[in-house]
This record gives sequence, C-alpha cells and structure tokens, in this order.
Amino acid sequence: MTYCWFKGNLQTEPLQLSPADRGLTLGDGVFETLLVIGGVAMWRQAHLNRMERAATELGIDFPSIEIDEAITQLCEKCMTEAWVLRLTLTRGVTSRNLWEDGTAPTFLATIARTDPRFMFTSVEVITSKVMRNETAPSSRMKTLSYIDQVFAARQAHAAKASDALLFNSKDVLAASTIANVFVLSGHELATPAVNEGALPGVVRRFLIDSAPQIGFTLREGGITRAELQAADGVFLTNSLRLLRPVTALDGIAVPHGRVETIIDLLASETKRQCGVDPRSI
Amino acid sequence: MTYCWFKGNLQTEPLQLSPADRGLTLGDGVFETLLVIGGVAMWRQAHLNRMERAATELGIDFPSIEIDEAITQLCEKCMTEAWVLRLTLTRGVTSRNLWEDGTAPTFLATIARTDPRFMFTSVEVITSKVMRNETAPSSRMKTLSYIDQVFAARQAHAAKASDALLFNSKDVLAASTIANVFVLSGHELATPAVNEGALPGVVRRFLIDSAPQIGFTLREGGITRAELQAADGVFLTNSLRLLRPVTALDGIAVPHGRVETIIDLLASETKRQCGVDPRSI
Repeated sequence: MTYCWFKGNLQTEPLQLSPADRGLTLGDGVFETLLVIGGVAMWRQAHLNRMERAATELGIDFPSIEIDEAITQLCEKCMTEAWVLRLTLTRGVTSRNLWEDGTAPTFLATIARTDPRFMFTSVEVITSKVMRNETAPSSRMKTLSYIDQVFAARQAHAAKASDALLFNSKDVLAASTIANVFVLSGHELATPAVNEGALPGVVRRFLIDSAPQIGFTLREGGITRAELQAADGVFLTNSLRLLRPVTALDGIAVPHGRVETIIDLLASETKRQCGVDPRSI
Repeated sequence: MTYCWFKGNLQTEPLQLSPADRGLTLGDGVFETLLVIGGVAMWRQAHLNRMERAATELGIDFPSIEIDEAITQLCEKCMTEAWVLRLTLTRGVTSRNLWEDGTAPTFLATIARTDPRFMFTSVEVITSKVMRNETAPSSRMKTLSYIDQVFAARQAHAAKASDALLFNSKDVLAASTIANVFVLSGHELATPAVNEGALPGVVRRFLIDSAPQIGFTLREGGITRAELQAADGVFLTNSLRLLRPVTALDGIAVPHGRVETIIDLLASETKRQCGVDPRSI
C-alpha cells in the first residue's frame, strides 16, 4: 500500500505531471526520506530544516505549510508498523534556461511500508572508484540528481556487496551511496566532515551530539583509507535503517567494535520519539 | 506549441507518471536534445547511438523501435522553422534499492519551437568553482542528474554571464554546463577529451572529423587555464545552438579568432542535412 500527496491533496497514483517538470528533466530538486513508526515521523523538524536549507540554496521556493500538512495527513494513515515517508520538491516548470528560478515548485510525498528487519542488520561494502565531488554543493544535499550513487550502488551489487564507500577529490572518505559513515578506533568515533562531501545526515547529527554521553570522543573529517582499514569497527547511518554495521570492506572482514552500545542509543531514541523500540516491531 | 510522445503514443500534456518513476525520484535516466529543421532531426543516428550507449552502461533497456517511431511522428508535425526535440528515457519504476535494473523503462519525447536567432550568437562565460567529476561515468553521458550544471549555470547568471566553464579534478578544462568547449590557438583547435569529463558531443565529433579539411589541426585534451586565457578564440558547441563564440571569460575579453570559417562549415552541414541554412531562418 502506498499513499500519495500531490498538489495540495491526498490522491491516488499516477500523478499528472508536466513533461517539462525539472524534477523529471534535470533532477532539479531535493528530497527527504523519513522513518515513520507508530504514526510519528522521526526527526521531523530536522529533516524539514535540511530540506528547506537545500531548497533555498538552489533557489527553489519551500512550501512549508503544504509540506507540514502532507506529513500530518499521510502519517495519520500509518499508525502501526514502520513506514518510509518520502518528500520530493522540484523546481517545477520553467523555460529551457538552466539558470531559471522557477515560480511554482512541484511538491509530492509518498508513504509506503518498509521492512523493519533491515534496521541494524550488517552489510558488506566495497570502495568505489567514483569520486565524491565535494566541490559541488549537491554533495551536501539530498538532490534528485542521484545518478552517481546509482552507478556506484550497481558496482557494489555486481561485486555482491550492499553498498559502496566514496572518497573525495583529496582521497578522504566522504560517504556511502545512501548513508553516512562512522569509523570506530578505540573510544574515538570519526565521521567525514560536510565540507569533505558528507551529507549533513540526521542520524549523523544525533550521534555527534549524543555519543559523547556514552563514552565516545567524536572527530569530524580526515578519514584516510589507512584509518578505515585499521578501524576497530565501521558502520553506516541513515534515517531508514538507522545503523548498519559493516562486516566486510572490499571482501576483507571488518571487526565489530563497540557498535552495540550505539545501536542501544538509537533504539532508545526511537522509542522516546515514537513510543516503540524498533527491534520489537 | 509543444507535442508530446509518451508510452507508445502521441498525447497531450500532462503525463500520467508514477510517483516512483526513477527519472523523477533519482535523476536515473538519460536524454538527448536534437535540432529539427524542416522536419529533419539533425545527426539523428549519432544522437541515438550515444543515448543507447549510455542507457546500456547504466543497465537501462533501450526501446529503439519506439524511439524511432516517436521521432518520425513528432518531426512530421514540425516541417517548418526550427524545433528542439527532446528524448527522455528513465529506468522506470523499481523497488527502493538503488542498484535495481528495472524492467520497463519510461520513454517520453517532446518537440517545441526553438528560436533560431540564438544559433551562432556570442556569449560571455565565467569559470565555475564546481569541479567536473571525470571519475563518474555520468560525466560522459547526458543523464537526468543535472543539478551540478544547474548550480553552475545559476552562478553564471548571477555574474551576468550566459554559461560557466568547468574544470576537472586535475584542473584541466572539461566542459561548459550545456556545451563542449573549443580553444583556438593559431591553426590548432583543442577540445577537452572524453576521459577528462567532456561529453562526447555530436557537434564536437563533427568538428573533430571535419575541421582538418578547412586547415585546422585538432588536439583532444590537456587544456590548462593558461592555455584558455592565452587563446586566439574560444567557442562552445552543442546540438541546439551549434556554435557560440565566447567574447568574455570572467569579465575579460576573448579574441574572436577564425571562428567564421567554422560557423560556415556548420551552416553548410545543416543545409546539407536539413535543406536550410540556419542563418536564413
């Protein structure tokens, strides 16, 4: 079951979309994916803030009242189990000039079931030869222009891995195709910096703020291939899967580290926000 | 007036598109824009070949019979003046996994009038701080993930320029946001190489093959900022505008060089293919 919001109303698929909508023609827009458990969209305001910042930097109007209304109405339909809410905002239709602002952005939202069993499960990853372009503002945003991540994910799948890690033009670790990366070394937890090509992830932010309370020191940036290979543990974070331990990197086993304490922290936060421990769904 | 082809038929706007179509959600697809004059789509087969190569590399089925039929039917409606034909092919709908092949690509095509007065007119350009990521296969394709070019074009527009030049991770010239770049120095014509981040442009290919016949030597690759700044002439090529001389780079005047002979060559080729000199429309 999927529910959909488009142009101000709940509606059934498909959409009536202009063939000139720049979301479709140029990947010109932004999106967010939120985990919804028990009808509550986790980190709702943090996602909205990030989406608004990106839209503003790209010169796309942000229809905050409509977006808020869409989230509320869609979540009301999904009070049990785990769902993924996707918000998509495009520049809408403009003349053919790439630089046009646009006047009427297109907003759509969908909500569909997600399988909670994928949360906290482990993954094998490869390192991709596709560089993360940290000079492009899109590296700090969830834009609709996702082709490089699609390509790297396809490389990973061909190598029987679940995801690929991307390094930036300085050969410093930046991100995976769909997640932030954390590297554990003793009590130190390191994660790529936003100006190195990391998305300012919502779970990433929560861990940067909260992990010191359970005994970790935090460092942003400067993760080399050597540090990654020597780590006590590596894990990925994103809003839907929360945390996934990396068990192999380019076919070589990665130690498990003290990831359990961080999983506990994220499960507690989910229960605090949504009333449910995600491991019990 | 715009005519549209979608899912096997000529149709009126808007489209009935799934909100999960990966063209819309992930910029996961490819496109081509063709100049149509007198009902003839210029360099038709070269565009189709490039589109098929890109689709194949991305694992997207290429429905060549439908595409051919769409071009023929749309061009028949546009026998006079100049038109822009856009072909768009997306991966269609898949599960949420980035790596999915997809089973039924979405193909659409639109044809709309273009103003022939923009052909051969001069432009002022800036150099962008956004790097061209030549490590990404998307740098060699016209994919729907165009956000970095959109961003650079917006920077150019803010600086009262028409386009932006992009350098790659080796600080070598790669492309503009919508065109290939050529640099004239005496009798030498240089253009970025495809493995440096240049799109294998159709007009670019024609000039590489034809310019020697009018006295130019050709070189692909290795264009530094210094060479660009010292050039006798700089111009942009793409399928819609054919050739546009660059008159200023970051606000500094660029010499005109021997661009007229190359404009004559392109106008002759247009007349040969379409029966009309584009300067006479």
